[in-house]
Amino acid sequence: MIDASSFKGRDIVSMSDFDREEIDFILDKATEMEPLAERGSDRLRGRILATLFFEPSTRTRLSFESAMLRLGGGAIGFAEPQVSSVAKGESLSDTIKTVDNYADVIVIRHPEEGAARIAAEAASVPVINAGSGSLEHPTQALLDLHTILASKGRIDGLRIAVLGDLLYGRTVHSLMYALANYRVKVYLVSPRQLRIRRDVLKGVEGKIDYVETEDPGPLLKDLDVLYVTRIQKERFPDPADYERVKGAYTIDKAFLKGADKDLVVMHPLPRMTELSTDVDDTPHAWYFKQMRHGLYVRMALLALVLGRL
Amino acid sequence: MIDASSFKGRDIVSMSDFDREEIDFILDKATEMEPLAERGSDRLRGRILATLFFEPSTRTRLSFESAMLRLGGGAIGFAEPQVSSVAKGESLSDTIKTVDNYADVIVIRHPEEGAARIAAEAASVPVINAGSGSLEHPTQALLDLHTILASKGRIDGLRIAVLGDLLYGRTVHSLMYALANYRVKVYLVSPRQLRIRRDVLKGVEGKIDYVETEDPGPLLKDLDVLYVTRIQKERFPDPADYERVKGAYTIDKAFLKGADKDLVVMHPLPRMTELSTDVDDTPHAWYFKQMRHGLYVRMALLALVLGRL
Amino acid sequence: MIDASSFKGRDIVSMSDFDREEIDFILDKATEMEPLAERGSDRLRGRILATLFFEPSTRTRLSFESAMLRLGGGAIGFAEPQVSSVAKGESLSDTIKTVDNYADVIVIRHPEEGAARIAAEAASVPVINAGSGSLEHPTQALLDLHTILASKGRIDGLRIAVLGDLLYGRTVHSLMYALANYRVKVYLVSPRQLRIRRDVLKGVEGKIDYVETEDPGPLLKDLDVLYVTRIQKERFPDPADYERVKGAYTIDKAFLKGADKDLVVMHPLPRMTELSTDVDDTPHAWYFKQMRHGLYVRMALLALVLGRL
Repeated sequence: MIDASSFKGRDIVSMSDFDREEIDFILDKATEMEPLAERGSDRLRGRILATLFFEPSTRTRLSFESAMLRLGGGAIGFAEPQVSSVAKGESLSDTIKTVDNYADVIVIRHPEEGAARIAAEAASVPVINAGSGSLEHPTQALLDLHTILASKGRIDGLRIAVLGDLLYGRTVHSLMYALANYRVKVYLVSPRQLRIRRDVLKGVEGKIDYVETEDPGPLLKDLDVLYVTRIQKERFPDPADYERVKGAYTIDKAFLKGADKDLVVMHPLPRMTELSTDVDDTPHAWYFKQMRHGLYVRMALLALVLGRL
Repeated sequence: MIDASSFKGRDIVSMSDFDREEIDFILDKATEMEPLAERGSDRLRGRILATLFFEPSTRTRLSFESAMLRLGGGAIGFAEPQVSSVAKGESLSDTIKTVDNYADVIVIRHPEEGAARIAAEAASVPVINAGSGSLEHPTQALLDLHTILASKGRIDGLRIAVLGDLLYGRTVHSLMYALANYRVKVYLVSPRQLRIRRDVLKGVEGKIDYVETEDPGPLLKDLDVLYVTRIQKERFPDPADYERVKGAYTIDKAFLKGADKDLVVMHPLPRMTELSTDVDDTPHAWYFKQMRHGLYVRMALLALVLGRL
Repeated sequence: MIDASSFKGRDIVSMSDFDREEIDFILDKATEMEPLAERGSDRLRGRILATLFFEPSTRTRLSFESAMLRLGGGAIGFAEPQVSSVAKGESLSDTIKTVDNYADVIVIRHPEEGAARIAAEAASVPVINAGSGSLEHPTQALLDLHTILASKGRIDGLRIAVLGDLLYGRTVHSLMYALANYRVKVYLVSPRQLRIRRDVLKGVEGKIDYVETEDPGPLLKDLDVLYVTRIQKERFPDPADYERVKGAYTIDKAFLKGADKDLVVMHPLPRMTELSTDVDDTPHAWYFKQMRHGLYVRMALLALVLGRL
């Protein structure tokens, strides 16, 4: 039996570290956070979060800091490596062992795969991966699930298309690991050059019923969730490759004409041209609400790993 | 009849959105904040401010954050756009719709005119303009009025000279809109190239009795307030134009010899050579105290728009 | 007789401003902070710290902010000068006089010697020097003493080697001024080009029994504390000079074979190659614990200068 104490002191590095019972438990607790997000709480009073962002981010950093403050805790950290001792050549492990003395929980974003795991090993306090390299972004996957649950009432039995950059998109990888715990049909829609990483597919083999395709059109009318992702310029080793695929998809109102009226459109944001603003005022648009669910999920995770739930 | 509830949820974008009764009400509330600034308060406990600074600032950002913390709230945000998703090409509107989920009030500074208005329209929470482009900086105007009131006991009937860069100086524009609600005589002192924007003059036409001049000397002995502004290098499209006017004025102790002994010298800071440090220890110097009044005004505004007054 | 009230409102600029009784008092109070660092406290509720970092730092800035938050206070500030009005050419003194209105205590780090003293003179609130130029870093010296006390139970009578860059290393200078209050034997180990500044030696002349040497080997077996410092590339006027000495020392497990089994190895961090990670899992390694003592010392200092102890 899972209970809150199973999460105390635990690191959140990869979605594949969690089974369905644990994920469902976290999602439940996230729902319980909704009223606390409105009125605030003192649950984490006296506790300190350190946000160590070695890559730029508005959304994830502010979301974690807001979650901590909403629960009465405090936040310290940096938003870019230049202001830290990393600029003097310090190893990640040494930085973490230092911050370990100042904070009760560490949230890290880093351009390199594996960085969050290294941080978790160096720290005595719990470490939460807020995106490392192009591999994983587990709290994003949890908030994606929570948004699906809020909009659809369930995850099992849904038909979900994930569209865009499936190669470099770390949110996609974490989402796949998360969905592998549910009975879903997944359509992986991308240009050939941006097909999902083979190691990720292998990780979910036999657990997810999936189809790879380049064309989202034919899927549209039977789809429950359309998860759009940005082609991330900053992840392409060769800019010319980016130019070839950047305009591959444009999801707009016209395209969504043929969709089920209850189709939920999600996006981890920021978006570029792949998702038109003319979708914003349709009932399909769940991507800004998705951010709100991120707050709930992160409040739950912070309270859980700090043993205060 | 104005009361605190009229301000709940309201955006503070331009001084021209407020009438005299509203301005007087805000100034009153700012005065009530003075003891709370000393001893702290729990009035905004559980509330979160997001400071989104797309341009550098010490004064305004720290002033708002201090105001929020003094009232028991918390603050998140960024001090420069490079650390945000704007660096990935996100639209301002999308950034705001995201942060809207994390904060109860947003303070924005932005290099483009109109940015604060766009933010206010995108957000569901109140947005406070902390300077957008060279057009407006309404909370600066309110703190300027509060300083005048504190030093002179009144605003009506005063003779006020505003000196320096009246073309690009956004504090000047907001101050003019604010002063248009009072019976004042205003002297607009600038080099010809930096005369006040015609649209601002038009906005206050018939409401302010003003004179434009290049020479502050003859005004000095009958003046109540001398408001000095910096020639802002960063606003000049052509650096050569800046070089021609940068040394136009130097207000120093010697220059102030002929002034009324109760003349109040103000400056929005930072200052360069236009205001000599030898004025600092004269009774004329109100520019550092002015910063303190900024704290009171911002405490009042935050509490008002959050409906906690 | 020293008591807590002697520290209220006081600046912490140089170790040489404090005598032994005062230092012992601070170290005592730091020890009292240990349980509060675990469970948090409300002692500084409603008080605000401004951290003004004109040079990059993870450790010192986060340590001070954590100390303030642990005691229930709030923190504002900047982590690099580009986001402040200094970028517009403002004088340090003006910046301080501004921040003076927003905060109850100011912590400053600055690349220039004397900056902390200028700040202390400009501010009405207490100013704590968190490193200015290559001259001083007094809170580092206090945490070094607290670590020595925790590991050895005493400071008097110890044999302490300080190794590495003794010329530019400001932590070394402050440590020397601090140790001058105790009966210690100090070995100053450095390459010839990086011998300790003559003005520092002069300052401790007759108070410290010291020896200058280039070779740490012969000292090792009788040593109580080995304080290793980084050769700081960023302080060298000529990069070629740096290249000549950067690899001068490497303290590793092999080198420590001949050491006393109770030898304490310290380092202000960040470290490069001068201190091998293979020392980390030996009982000699105190450098990460040292960071924790920094938290205690800074909690005590903040509470003392704010008059809340």
